[in-house]
Amino acid sequence: MRVLGIDPGLTRCGVGVVDGVPGRLGRLVAYHVIRSEPDEDLADRLLNLDRSLSALVAEHKPESVAVERVFAQHNARTVMGTAQASGIAILAGARAGLPVQTYTPSEVKAAVTGSGTADKKQVTAMVTRLLKLDAPPKPADAADAIAIAICHIWRGGTRAKLEAAALVAARGRRR
Amino acid sequence: MRVLGIDPGLTRCGVGVVDGVPGRLGRLVAYHVIRSEPDEDLADRLLNLDRSLSALVAEHKPESVAVERVFAQHNARTVMGTAQASGIAILAGARAGLPVQTYTPSEVKAAVTGSGTADKKQVTAMVTRLLKLDAPPKPADAADAIAIAICHIWRGGTRAKLEAAALVAARGRRR
Repeated sequence: MRVLGIDPGLTRCGVGVVDGVPGRLGRLVAYHVIRSEPDEDLADRLLNLDRSLSALVAEHKPESVAVERVFAQHNARTVMGTAQASGIAILAGARAGLPVQTYTPSEVKAAVTGSGTADKKQVTAMVTRLLKLDAPPKPADAADAIAIAICHIWRGGTRAKLEAAALVAARGRRR
Repeated sequence: MRVLGIDPGLTRCGVGVVDGVPGRLGRLVAYHVIRSEPDEDLADRLLNLDRSLSALVAEHKPESVAVERVFAQHNARTVMGTAQASGIAILAGARAGLPVQTYTPSEVKAAVTGSGTADKKQVTAMVTRLLKLDAPPKPADAADAIAIAICHIWRGGTRAKLEAAALVAARGRRR
């Protein structure tokens, strides 16, 4: 399956596209950072983000979209912009008719490094290793987006297994 | 000028459409409350909001859109959803090619009641009086959205006067 991961932000929004199946990561298809300037008009910044994300969804045709969840306790100066950007990111997936899943930062970190409190450097190092890249993705914002896509592929695996188990159990009861 | 005011929210998003010119309020054209349920999928809720707002913009053809600004110190449990809804609201105006302005809650309250700390009841009472309505708009969420539109019409007036004054001053200097 192909997943488009989004690390939402107004000034920098990371996007990573990864192919893979649960248990076996495939390859990094592409990554991007969508930028806008803090002194630009807010409406223009959101419109630019919406158009860029929709274009990337149309270009890469993912089967699902994964977005990092934003929390109120983040940097208070920028958290409202980040939350608005996350709304636009989720909408971009929904408007394309795709399933959209959100993950907490610690779920994403745990998925790629084994620890929910790993730092950015560790996440970048593991993304580079897991996808067998020649060099770490630059800028670092892109590595986070790629990690979100990896998290979704692996969590999708867990979910698929749980659903299969539930189905088998339900069939068992019907016998 | 016709203004579409939006009081952003995920569970209830107020929309008020008002005609008027700076210094003279015209009439209430329409008001709506767009709803979604907290247990619905977030992507579906944002998509529903986007579609409903875009449909209202297309129906009422406002010249500008005014949106209430969201702050991090609001109710922490719902503030992220409200911020995401505000991103969708601003985007709906921008996608239609309209100018979008944001106002703080105290700017809106001060514009309709004279006090930046007025309560919801006072705002509803003044909206009803200023627009010469037979009854207060129901539900109250709609009154806030109408107040935002009124605020924009009046502030637009101030701005237009300031711009005219600046133009006259600039002409004076050129003589």
